[in-house]
Amino acid sequence: MSSSNTAPVNTIEHLCIIGVGLIGGSFARAVRQAGLVKRITGCGRNIENLKKALELGVIDDYSQDIKQAVKSADLIFIATPVGSFQSVLSQIKESMKEGVIITDGGSTKSSVIEAAKAVFNEVPVNFVPGHPIAGTENSGVEASFATLYQDHRVILTPLEQTNPDAINIVSQLWEAAGAKVVMMDAHHHDLVLAATSHLPHLLAFSLVNTLTTLDEKQEIFEYAAGGFRDFTRIASSDPAMWQDICLANKEALLEHLDHFCSDLKQLRSALQQGDGDFLRETFTRAKHSRDDFIANKNT
Amino acid sequence: MSSSNTAPVNTIEHLCIIGVGLIGGSFARAVRQAGLVKRITGCGRNIENLKKALELGVIDDYSQDIKQAVKSADLIFIATPVGSFQSVLSQIKESMKEGVIITDGGSTKSSVIEAAKAVFNEVPVNFVPGHPIAGTENSGVEASFATLYQDHRVILTPLEQTNPDAINIVSQLWEAAGAKVVMMDAHHHDLVLAATSHLPHLLAFSLVNTLTTLDEKQEIFEYAAGGFRDFTRIASSDPAMWQDICLANKEALLEHLDHFCSDLKQLRSALQQGDGDFLRETFTRAKHSRDDFIANKNT
Repeated sequence: MSSSNTAPVNTIEHLCIIGVGLIGGSFARAVRQAGLVKRITGCGRNIENLKKALELGVIDDYSQDIKQAVKSADLIFIATPVGSFQSVLSQIKESMKEGVIITDGGSTKSSVIEAAKAVFNEVPVNFVPGHPIAGTENSGVEASFATLYQDHRVILTPLEQTNPDAINIVSQLWEAAGAKVVMMDAHHHDLVLAATSHLPHLLAFSLVNTLTTLDEKQEIFEYAAGGFRDFTRIASSDPAMWQDICLANKEALLEHLDHFCSDLKQLRSALQQGDGDFLRETFTRAKHSRDDFIANKNT
Repeated sequence: MSSSNTAPVNTIEHLCIIGVGLIGGSFARAVRQAGLVKRITGCGRNIENLKKALELGVIDDYSQDIKQAVKSADLIFIATPVGSFQSVLSQIKESMKEGVIITDGGSTKSSVIEAAKAVFNEVPVNFVPGHPIAGTENSGVEASFATLYQDHRVILTPLEQTNPDAINIVSQLWEAAGAKVVMMDAHHHDLVLAATSHLPHLLAFSLVNTLTTLDEKQEIFEYAAGGFRDFTRIASSDPAMWQDICLANKEALLEHLDHFCSDLKQLRSALQQGDGDFLRETFTRAKHSRDDFIANKNT
């Protein structure tokens, strides 16, 4: 908990979570555990998941009627795949309370802001786009846990017109969940995350897919070890969610992908020509960066 | 220990480990723990590492004079980078005892067999090429531990002329280390491992290297999370070792790399065209394979 330096957050009377999966469910668990919310309503398309969320005490009630679900909410947290945002916002537009704060956990931010613009003409002043840099490859409410965000970053990408009080309340909820909140321009967020998250996911999915087409498929997986398990962990992520993220952040992702492919082509030439120095220098640069990254993470 | 079904292995009087790092050090620790060896001599170029190995009790003595080190050995385990094999074999050729068994832990097998052919004209009948499918991204004797091979596969790639007694002894040592021994043709081994290990390493090194060249480098690493940490773990591996492996298994690696790049190009087109179905189908195939892989590993 790092909110000790800031004014205590007022308790949220009624929180509505749209999409009670890993991200939404963990947010609900964390803010409830911090004692910052009185009632949590869940909303989503999968009734079994909502029943499970209720059973686990993650939510207090649920409604599959999204208009009904948000009607009396003071804060709405949207944690559905980013491709669904425009539809979600359209549906809640007429039902939500005056002054309600909206935030989200979407992995891409420009697309979410575009969706809000498309629905409301102007991005609502009480909409605080956000992205917690945390997750696992598992999905659904059963994968959620209260400490998912502990010591992780949450990037908020408010606009110039965004209400500072709304930013403050959303920040304090995340801090109560144990996260470190940072502000960033949405476009910049998308460029950084394309490199560090979206491109690795694309490559992991792509590699595993390629391996499934090989004649030696069976053995390949049989003789794969720990390095392969870790390298491909993110290929066990939710395909529909990642389809949305890739499309929502297409431009930045294509930019990084092309850069990567061009460098890989150079490495291929070096390999073919037996240029060991080039390989070793490339590997060494990568190892140093990666070792530094780990050292910095641990400090 | 799975050697209960087979005849008990005779104790090795004198084992010589050339290259006392993660692989060689862990082998030494494991066979000593199993009580299967009386004396272990270490040999390597890094004197500090050898002193450390002695201090840790991994070896009983060491010599940097490779001819001296192997002179009275009954079994020689070569655990140096695969690019050094021809030089190592040339140096031990005239000094080693008649009938000594030679085995290795190299990640590529055709190249090792070629090196033996180049030095001895014919691959010696007591040379049993091997590859333990285990490791971590750390190197040096301090990274070694006795249970590294526990429940892991060790692939042996003997030739037609290889002495069955030598195969048997090497197998029993690995089994005593807790490993499951399987036999495979060297060329086939190289093709399978190129897909499951060498290509992922090349991609991980390449991606991290590309990211270090971006303007947003600092932030990229700052906002990287667990998915990135795992995806890039193998990019912390030893660059010199991986330079050797890539060059030693160039043909198979290029074959898989080209296949991967061609599939990635298709995925890129789908992304650019906004073909969400293609993305989701690819991701779904990958997720299923990867989930199956994990389920099979846990059974």
